[in-house]
Amino acid sequence: MRVLGVDPGLTRCGVGVVEGVAGRPLTMLGVGVVRTPADAELGHRLVAIERGIEEWLDEYEPEVVAVERVFSQHNVSTVMGTAQASAVAMLCAARRGIPVALHTPSEVKAAVTGSGRADKAQVGAMVTRLLRLSAPPKPADAADALALAICHIWRAPAQNRLQQAVNRHASALKGRTT
Amino acid sequence: MRVLGVDPGLTRCGVGVVEGVAGRPLTMLGVGVVRTPADAELGHRLVAIERGIEEWLDEYEPEVVAVERVFSQHNVSTVMGTAQASAVAMLCAARRGIPVALHTPSEVKAAVTGSGRADKAQVGAMVTRLLRLSAPPKPADAADALALAICHIWRAPAQNRLQQAVNRHASALKGRTT
Repeated sequence: MRVLGVDPGLTRCGVGVVEGVAGRPLTMLGVGVVRTPADAELGHRLVAIERGIEEWLDEYEPEVVAVERVFSQHNVSTVMGTAQASAVAMLCAARRGIPVALHTPSEVKAAVTGSGRADKAQVGAMVTRLLRLSAPPKPADAADALALAICHIWRAPAQNRLQQAVNRHASALKGRTT
Repeated sequence: MRVLGVDPGLTRCGVGVVEGVAGRPLTMLGVGVVRTPADAELGHRLVAIERGIEEWLDEYEPEVVAVERVFSQHNVSTVMGTAQASAVAMLCAARRGIPVALHTPSEVKAAVTGSGRADKAQVGAMVTRLLRLSAPPKPADAADALALAICHIWRAPAQNRLQQAVNRHASALKGRTT
């Protein structure tokens, strides 16, 4: 499975592509940051993010795009920009028919470090180890994007089993009523 | 001036086109709502909103798109969806080179009713009167989109004068230092 992770943000939108399956060593295919100038108009910033995400989708053709789920409770000052950047990333993926998966920051931290409250340094260290990199990806947004992709690859089998169980249950119920 | 007002939302995104200049009677060219099903995936909803906004831009070719400025302080439960829908509207406009203007809900209410704390019924009543309609546009999101467009047409001259004064001041300063 090839996953593009996106850590959304207007100033720095982290992007990272990871390939692999749960239980096997993972491979990083690419990592980077889509930046937009803080003094540019909001509309133009969103267009620049769209262009950046499109380039990553063109180059790596991921099967899934994993985006951080944004909560309005946290970081009130930046949350609107984060929500807007995430909307652009989801739009770009959905427009191409690529499934979008959302993971919360604590799901991502728990997946790669074992603790939902791990700090950025810990996430960066584990991403470096898991992808066998020589140094932690910089900036932190880039490392977070890779962590999102890893989280998705590892959680996907469980989510698929859960979805299959839900589907089986729904068919069983349907069989009972018809 | 022809303005497309957008009251952003995932379930109901209000859209309304108003033409005119400050100080003269205004004309409504179109009003409607872009709807997306609440049970659809977020990415697909954003694609549907993009398609809807594109159709309005194609049909009416507005010179400006006025979008409600979203605050994270209000309606925490729906604010993320509102921010995401507004991002799509801004992206569609900016991609075509159409200027995007943001107005706060209280600026819009104050522009059309004289009070920044007017309720929905009051806004609907004034929109009906100002555009000489036979009945208030339904749903409220459609009326709010028209109110946004009216607000922009009325505020634009003041904003332009302000911008010109800023520019003059900047040139004067520049003249003094060179």
